[in-house]
Amino acid sequence: MRIVLVGSGNLATRTALALSEAGNPPIQVWSRNAEHAVRLASMLPGATATDRAEELICDADLYLLAVSDHALETVAAALPSTTGIWAHTAGSMPMDALRPYHETIGVFYPLQTFSRERRVDYSSIPIYIEGSDEAVVRLLESVGRLISRDVLRCTSEQRLYLHLAAVFACNFTNHLYALSEQMLAEHGLPPRSLAPLIAETAAKVQEMSATEAQTGPAKRDDTNTLQKHLGLLDPYPDWQEIYRMLSDSIRKMYGPKE
Amino acid sequence: MRIVLVGSGNLATRTALALSEAGNPPIQVWSRNAEHAVRLASMLPGATATDRAEELICDADLYLLAVSDHALETVAAALPSTTGIWAHTAGSMPMDALRPYHETIGVFYPLQTFSRERRVDYSSIPIYIEGSDEAVVRLLESVGRLISRDVLRCTSEQRLYLHLAAVFACNFTNHLYALSEQMLAEHGLPPRSLAPLIAETAAKVQEMSATEAQTGPAKRDDTNTLQKHLGLLDPYPDWQEIYRMLSDSIRKMYGPKE
Repeated sequence: MRIVLVGSGNLATRTALALSEAGNPPIQVWSRNAEHAVRLASMLPGATATDRAEELICDADLYLLAVSDHALETVAAALPSTTGIWAHTAGSMPMDALRPYHETIGVFYPLQTFSRERRVDYSSIPIYIEGSDEAVVRLLESVGRLISRDVLRCTSEQRLYLHLAAVFACNFTNHLYALSEQMLAEHGLPPRSLAPLIAETAAKVQEMSATEAQTGPAKRDDTNTLQKHLGLLDPYPDWQEIYRMLSDSIRKMYGPKE
Repeated sequence: MRIVLVGSGNLATRTALALSEAGNPPIQVWSRNAEHAVRLASMLPGATATDRAEELICDADLYLLAVSDHALETVAAALPSTTGIWAHTAGSMPMDALRPYHETIGVFYPLQTFSRERRVDYSSIPIYIEGSDEAVVRLLESVGRLISRDVLRCTSEQRLYLHLAAVFACNFTNHLYALSEQMLAEHGLPPRSLAPLIAETAAKVQEMSATEAQTGPAKRDDTNTLQKHLGLLDPYPDWQEIYRMLSDSIRKMYGPKE
């Protein structure tokens, strides 16, 4: 399978390295940032790098557009006409975002949070596939199975909600970790004090539903503790408002139904 | 060490079992719920159970009051006079909550989320210790070290903030998992779709700070995606408000400083 990778960010890098480990590295890396393209290509046996549209290999089987959601259409518009399939990796973009630029299109969406410095076990990442026809879906599924045990189909509409749910379960939870780190720092407590708690909270929902796993003063409707916490947050009105809103949401979920 | 356990909930149960595995099971379990007391005591070699104050063993070294924060004072008031140390396990209660009821007092606060059905590795749970004098602190530290690698001292005031930070990092993040599960269910997506993402998000902050680990549209200030998500949440005004508030908080943390 001749794959051209368009992009050189975290997701592009992790996906290219996983394909390479599976014995099918991209044959070319195209990026608007020439230096990034060269750096990534140097890690992929046999791959070339370019930042120029006219140097793009035009007869590959698959062009994987691994660029950020907001850059997708600009990048697609900049690519020359090619053979093969164009598939993007952008959670919040419909497949049809590629429609004006190419005929045979699809989506290849690995649902994970990627950081440049951190290795992830790609084989456990679910990859969500969509294609403009069944042959595209089959080809993207076969590429997905090279690097993951968990390749699934979903529609553009489902993917929107998947991405939205991921923002809650990943980006927002990480922000709550960040707020808790600030609280620890401001009160002379070691920054890793909550690490075992964070690990256990995430481990629990690998086995049970989050509604079963819920604990804490809002779940118990322990108004004494809730009031005490709101008082402690008086000097931090933004955090106080977050506390109030999430506690109300928990009480609504578990409290007596009206 | 002769320990009497007061309480029979999740924290009491996990702590008693850990003490038992360490070769020092509580010698008695007292609980307002007689059935729970009997069930827990039956798992502890040599332990008796009671729900009656007059049957409490009165010459133990340590009375561990492992009851919920809001029940603590009622339970302490119901106990007869004894020798030894009284220590409570309630994150949001100051040590001095026990002062009206006993002289030699302390706090033994294992910072973790406990569920009845789920085993936890107690040895990795940090235990925060406080005592009315240095001898109490030393005794509680030695009990803590029987079951955990991580025994620390903190003041009542620090523990308040620790507990508050734990609500953000555990109870609120679990609630965000619960909201994301509801979104998946409403759009025909498998309930475990986000499990690898949740695991990775928590694993990242075991190694780096949460501010370094932050990703997502709010961090990138990707207003297109933010607007799209807010639109999807139109039918769910509570979730929309949570989305808006947490995204604003993220943008404030990472955006250009005023």
